[in-house]
Amino acid sequence: MAAIDESRKEQIRRVAVKLFRDRGYAGTSVRDIAEAVGIQGGSLYAHVNSKDDLLWDIVNHSADRFFEKLSPIFAQDQAVMPRLRQAIIAHVGVITNDLDAAAVYSTEWRHLSAERRALFAARRDEYEQMFRGLIREGMEQRLLATADEVFASLFVLSSLNWVYQWFKPDGKLTGDELGKMMAEYIFDGLRRRLS
Amino acid sequence: MAAIDESRKEQIRRVAVKLFRDRGYAGTSVRDIAEAVGIQGGSLYAHVNSKDDLLWDIVNHSADRFFEKLSPIFAQDQAVMPRLRQAIIAHVGVITNDLDAAAVYSTEWRHLSAERRALFAARRDEYEQMFRGLIREGMEQRLLATADEVFASLFVLSSLNWVYQWFKPDGKLTGDELGKMMAEYIFDGLRRRLS
Repeated sequence: MAAIDESRKEQIRRVAVKLFRDRGYAGTSVRDIAEAVGIQGGSLYAHVNSKDDLLWDIVNHSADRFFEKLSPIFAQDQAVMPRLRQAIIAHVGVITNDLDAAAVYSTEWRHLSAERRALFAARRDEYEQMFRGLIREGMEQRLLATADEVFASLFVLSSLNWVYQWFKPDGKLTGDELGKMMAEYIFDGLRRRLS
Repeated sequence: MAAIDESRKEQIRRVAVKLFRDRGYAGTSVRDIAEAVGIQGGSLYAHVNSKDDLLWDIVNHSADRFFEKLSPIFAQDQAVMPRLRQAIIAHVGVITNDLDAAAVYSTEWRHLSAERRALFAARRDEYEQMFRGLIREGMEQRLLATADEVFASLFVLSSLNWVYQWFKPDGKLTGDELGKMMAEYIFDGLRRRLS
């Protein structure tokens, strides 16, 4: 029974992610979710306490993916530039791997209850600190030219986070190839070097 | 009377932008907007036909700002790199100048009716084509190192479009300073040059 409940819960989350992306959190009712899952609205409450709980579960699930991928890279005992490159590729990978979840994570967290919104922001900050830490390390080792680790990491994460808006899973590049390309753009810029 | 109507319409738009950003389009009712403006729900319909019309007006108003700023730069008879730099600064300027409008423009267009959504996408594509054109010019003149104008412009616009999520009007940098910094990051990347 536990396994069945788990997969039903996972199914509900998948459906809710899709609906939250398409209609927005506020535009999706618990009844919409139950209908899309194919169960009665009442039965949904056996698995989910509230819509806010569901959104909270969804954004934490996404945050888990980001941490899972980035933490081991951050902890590696390797030169900083390859680690930063791996971090960029990993971050793009989490986004391209589930575009709907990335969209909900990026935009719908605003609709969490105030307390959870604060917890969400703290967790996202903690994640961004890892990027900032890598960039600071690169600056200290004089490998990066930037003078400001805060804006430099905002630049890096901005260029990556928007990817969910336009990435096509059946397009020219895989998520991994796109991550590598983004790392190149971020490291070396678009301008041709004279040498 | 016309002037009063215009300013009331502008006031309604301002209020709607704020509410659409905070609560999402689907989470905002016409009644919410009327209440925030301080008029009766019924009176609002003297100025606005429907919520969809209001969203349509808002995203077109934003698109107008982007075109207004970019078109003259694109049409200039100047070297391509300074034009691309100006285009980046102008794009950031439109975003930082009205963060709520940029947020609604970026995320809430999905809730337009299908026909308008298609028109919106066409207009946004037309705008992005101007960036793509500048990048293609830079590639042809061998000033840019990138091999793919499509991904290169997606990289540029991604790094800029996310700015609405974190820019602080009372922060360390003005919108103009941020635009200049972004242009530097985009042109030269974060990596220190050896020479």
